[in-house]
Amino acid sequence: MLDRQPVASFAEIRQILRDLPGPDLEAATRTATREALLTKPTGALARLEEITQWLATWQGKHPPAVNHPRVAVFAGNHGVADLGVSAYPKEVTAQMVLNFQSGGAAVNQLCKNADADLRVYEMCLDQPTADFTQGPALTEEETARAMAYGMMAVEPGVDLLCVGEMGIANTTSAAAMAAALFGGTGQEWAGPGTGIHGSALSRKAEVIDLGLARHRDRFEDGLAILQCLGGHELAAIAGAVIAARMARVPVLLDGFASTVAAATLLKLDSHALDHCLVAHCSAEPGHRKVLAKMNKQPLLDLGMRLGEGSGAALAIPLIRAAAMCHSGMASFAEAGVSNKD
Amino acid sequence: MLDRQPVASFAEIRQILRDLPGPDLEAATRTATREALLTKPTGALARLEEITQWLATWQGKHPPAVNHPRVAVFAGNHGVADLGVSAYPKEVTAQMVLNFQSGGAAVNQLCKNADADLRVYEMCLDQPTADFTQGPALTEEETARAMAYGMMAVEPGVDLLCVGEMGIANTTSAAAMAAALFGGTGQEWAGPGTGIHGSALSRKAEVIDLGLARHRDRFEDGLAILQCLGGHELAAIAGAVIAARMARVPVLLDGFASTVAAATLLKLDSHALDHCLVAHCSAEPGHRKVLAKMNKQPLLDLGMRLGEGSGAALAIPLIRAAAMCHSGMASFAEAGVSNKD
Repeated sequence: MLDRQPVASFAEIRQILRDLPGPDLEAATRTATREALLTKPTGALARLEEITQWLATWQGKHPPAVNHPRVAVFAGNHGVADLGVSAYPKEVTAQMVLNFQSGGAAVNQLCKNADADLRVYEMCLDQPTADFTQGPALTEEETARAMAYGMMAVEPGVDLLCVGEMGIANTTSAAAMAAALFGGTGQEWAGPGTGIHGSALSRKAEVIDLGLARHRDRFEDGLAILQCLGGHELAAIAGAVIAARMARVPVLLDGFASTVAAATLLKLDSHALDHCLVAHCSAEPGHRKVLAKMNKQPLLDLGMRLGEGSGAALAIPLIRAAAMCHSGMASFAEAGVSNKD
Repeated sequence: MLDRQPVASFAEIRQILRDLPGPDLEAATRTATREALLTKPTGALARLEEITQWLATWQGKHPPAVNHPRVAVFAGNHGVADLGVSAYPKEVTAQMVLNFQSGGAAVNQLCKNADADLRVYEMCLDQPTADFTQGPALTEEETARAMAYGMMAVEPGVDLLCVGEMGIANTTSAAAMAAALFGGTGQEWAGPGTGIHGSALSRKAEVIDLGLARHRDRFEDGLAILQCLGGHELAAIAGAVIAARMARVPVLLDGFASTVAAATLLKLDSHALDHCLVAHCSAEPGHRKVLAKMNKQPLLDLGMRLGEGSGAALAIPLIRAAAMCHSGMASFAEAGVSNKD
């Protein structure tokens, strides 16, 4: 992406999506060939073997490696936060960005644990999206620019990209987008988010339904869903996912909001997320439903519901472990181990 | 354990088990108090918060830390291997030990990934256990000595112990022990192990049933189950788990064989494994059944079935991540983040 002018329209993004690179089948074949020689019963590393295969296929090289993982956290504010849909005030988005910058958040520790590079992208925090119950959350140009901004997270050298978000009220956005993408009502998709219950949860469902009613005629288009119901940080995630595909960087999606943001791309190309794995299934109830719709099996299921890229950062060591086993293990012949009769 | 003479009888082991230290409730309370202050919605790190609580409780200190994790792999041979219950010949146990020593196995890479110390304990590989369909696999003294040997894996400085095993035919032993502990037949507990099917699997079930029939009158005693149906490496794991408890070192159990070996201790003290978590649910079908009986929820469920401590080594970064989040995150007050209304 780096040798292009930043995109600023949906037409340009649609053009990019028509040119997405496919799987590297040669790297995949070389991976399968080596895997069969390694000192273990056939298939005994199971999901780790699938991860290695996926990594090679989408890095487009054999052996695959995870030497420079990056966690990109996009932060944005939402107009609907003023409608009483969150347990926290909107100011918390900027406060948490400062917390990321000074190293005090969970994702800082998780990146340190994973030896990953953390980048935080602050997106117009003093200009929240418009209230989507009244009109589109963003203009087309704002959406396209946010996507282009997200694309910048994919820099040379990065070999695994984790995408996460911070944005008070963005589970309301994500739930509305999930309903737009997969059908259903506010009540079916609204969850506790940072921890709301009772009348606040009913209010959240109602806000989602109002947004769905207002924008329903635009739900055939994934980019329009991002524009009408999304937010700066959610559009940026979609952009980052596209840029990663083009640069042959596999992606770990984080929780509910990140996954839904990426899922908008499936409306444009059903293979647009083949280079993405879902790191962790959030306790936010909509996430499990979205994953079932997308036919994605999460790597971890630990009940977390924090966002900020935490689930993806936590899963990096699993991806690295898979690559290291594949590259570093001896073959039966090298080790002098008797193979199965 | 290091200031004692090695134990050599069940009486001595039973005495040790009567003196096991309990949870450190002060460390647990201090952990809960700090956890509530950290910059995240209450409970948003879910299982990671439970891990931290467990780690502090059984390390007996706050904050808990994972600076020196050790993966202890015990290797032993089994007389029943000659009965056609495995896809691999018995020689593979020693060959894999060499592979561990030269760095070529999966667990070597997984330890490198986790920054963990790997120790491999070779146990009388040229003296397999006796065929348990004909008599006890081990004598009482052999069992007690193997347990004492396992205790040596807990050395000063180790702050998290992972226990794994290598032993051709030891899923046959483990399945027989699971049946002895929890009831059921060979057919209910026999699984493919390294990859057997059809008549070999039926033979494995039959071998288990013969062992159960021969030793059934001794199944009230966990140590007798280890002696009659177990093996050197399985007894060593039970010993390591006891020594870890005494030295306040939390334990990650690996797959089916490791978990069953540890589960024998529950017959002596229903709280004997409170300092243990199960790292990964094996694809070996008996493991999920044993975990349900033990009421232990595995951290990972990735379909692996390799043994050699692989699942436990893979989970170390999750444990470290939990400890790092707890210790390194800022409080709401420190970070200047507004808390929930």
